[in-house]
Amino acid sequence: MTKPKNDTLLRALLRQPTEYTPLWLMRQAGRYLPEYNQTRARAGSFLSLCKSPDFATEVTMQPLARYPLDAAILFSDILTIPDAMGLGLYFAEGEGPKFERPLRDEWEIRDLAVPDPDVHLRYVMDAVRQIRKALDNEVPLIGFSGSPFTLACYMVEGGGSDDFRRLKTMLYDRPELLHHILDVTAQAVTAYLNAQIESGAQVVMIFDTWGGTLSAAGYREFSLRYLEQIVARLRREHEGRRVPSIVFTKGGGLWLESIAGTGCDAVGLDWTIDIGEARRRVGNRVALQGNLDPAVMFASPEKITEEAGRILSAYGSGHGHVFNLGHGISQFTPPDNVLALADAVHSISRQFH
Amino acid sequence: MTKPKNDTLLRALLRQPTEYTPLWLMRQAGRYLPEYNQTRARAGSFLSLCKSPDFATEVTMQPLARYPLDAAILFSDILTIPDAMGLGLYFAEGEGPKFERPLRDEWEIRDLAVPDPDVHLRYVMDAVRQIRKALDNEVPLIGFSGSPFTLACYMVEGGGSDDFRRLKTMLYDRPELLHHILDVTAQAVTAYLNAQIESGAQVVMIFDTWGGTLSAAGYREFSLRYLEQIVARLRREHEGRRVPSIVFTKGGGLWLESIAGTGCDAVGLDWTIDIGEARRRVGNRVALQGNLDPAVMFASPEKITEEAGRILSAYGSGHGHVFNLGHGISQFTPPDNVLALADAVHSISRQFH
Repeated sequence: MTKPKNDTLLRALLRQPTEYTPLWLMRQAGRYLPEYNQTRARAGSFLSLCKSPDFATEVTMQPLARYPLDAAILFSDILTIPDAMGLGLYFAEGEGPKFERPLRDEWEIRDLAVPDPDVHLRYVMDAVRQIRKALDNEVPLIGFSGSPFTLACYMVEGGGSDDFRRLKTMLYDRPELLHHILDVTAQAVTAYLNAQIESGAQVVMIFDTWGGTLSAAGYREFSLRYLEQIVARLRREHEGRRVPSIVFTKGGGLWLESIAGTGCDAVGLDWTIDIGEARRRVGNRVALQGNLDPAVMFASPEKITEEAGRILSAYGSGHGHVFNLGHGISQFTPPDNVLALADAVHSISRQFH
Repeated sequence: MTKPKNDTLLRALLRQPTEYTPLWLMRQAGRYLPEYNQTRARAGSFLSLCKSPDFATEVTMQPLARYPLDAAILFSDILTIPDAMGLGLYFAEGEGPKFERPLRDEWEIRDLAVPDPDVHLRYVMDAVRQIRKALDNEVPLIGFSGSPFTLACYMVEGGGSDDFRRLKTMLYDRPELLHHILDVTAQAVTAYLNAQIESGAQVVMIFDTWGGTLSAAGYREFSLRYLEQIVARLRREHEGRRVPSIVFTKGGGLWLESIAGTGCDAVGLDWTIDIGEARRRVGNRVALQGNLDPAVMFASPEKITEEAGRILSAYGSGHGHVFNLGHGISQFTPPDNVLALADAVHSISRQFH
């Protein structure tokens, strides 16, 4: 397997020299793009997009046709694993993800089994292979999964939540039950990400969307511990090339040193932390990915350029920075603003390399 | 004016010796109490509760009749100031606060005026005076306001928001307009808190509920700067006694040193930061208030006792700690659990004093 023609992202994640700061955007294939909405209308639903390798490939490629991005990311959902465990993922219009059969009884929790990714999540592996073909080695492909804690939030609550009351009640009153869910889920995430790597994913990222709702002690016990387990068991190489891993805990700025200590190659940052301060705190242990406030994308191209420059200069000279937003791109982003951002990052960053 | 019979809170906020760690709870007069719901039903709505000094006094006193709390907090809403500015506060059932006339046009922003608290917010001052009478100097009364940034979020959006898109677009594209709103609002908050102090509030707290949605640079420019202005202009004494101030930015753990540097006497902490680490970071500059995960209150009394002990021992020996939750108490909290918490805090904390 030859390396991608543009391997800037891979080098940046491994803190190797690059000519400029590579850029990709969380949720870069999404509702802010008219062509995405057209494909989604043809597919019938978000979940049909995810479950069809043809559609998933089509929408994964869309932002790359418009913008000079340095990576593709698999089009999928973070909740494919619990769906494969039998919980029945569905999307209620305007309400976000839900499960038909959330974990309500102890026996359901004890019955949880690790799904075989090549069987129960085969549609994802097929999508990875098909996207790799479509990419034709232009840029690397990022695979991903939700974190065990984030998956458990949805599995126990049955959907999103303001306060995660069921989950938190279990955490404080029945921690051994929650640990069982997390343990099975961590095994599932590990197998899933390794299968994505074997299918062709050249980077993997773990999204810990809800870890930031925990106390400091709770984060260590119920999220970080499982992130460490997964990272330790990830395939480090595939076909002779190193496969970098990225861990992103939204709201995890206070625990940056711990996240950098999981063994991952890069830490994703949300927009609340100053990336210069983050770099001083983690030193040379990991690369950093982030961290523009997604709301900057509602502003003028001039302001986007200014704010991108602010982040590039806060990170400063040297390698190991991957530019991204601090969270997924909003559906209300004017598509032309992404071009302004990509141009700004690629041109301004050259002076720092 | 004699000091309260129980002035433990006042001493703790000024880092003076106390016999135990004082305790109060954000939103302690609220929907988890059946007697509150009965009063609210009689009043007809949440806003009628706030606007009637009789009802506000009645519900302020309710948690004190049940629990050995070390303070009362004025029953009111954080959005009284924009309501007094003419924006028309109302509560849509199950949807949280909304404004009939949010700030949509530049002329509306330029027309904003500082309300006279003794005229336009007289119902609040009447409530403060009436609550002080009802308290009969048993425990001190805390007055409060929303922070300028948090008020501006609601004033511009017209209600709560997932992404504060209008507000953030203004912040990045028209910062001078947002600064005008914040400047007028900061003057209004200062006058409002000083009027509460003159009416009898013995402590004041500023709730910066949405400051944590800003970037580090954005927080300094659009929230912290105005918190500093307010704290600098607060009355420090009333009737010969010092009036301590508390600043609480939810999600502000990364900026703790800056918040401690506003000149406030105490910093409120949400539950995501380890209070021992927070104490090491701020040293002896301020007292700390917090920071139990409100979700612990869904657990058993034994677990509540254990988690309260964990926080007390993380803070460690010495004075300057006010026990609280890291956010408002949930409406789903079993009322008896608050008794378990109060007993735990009062008994366990004696060893640390």
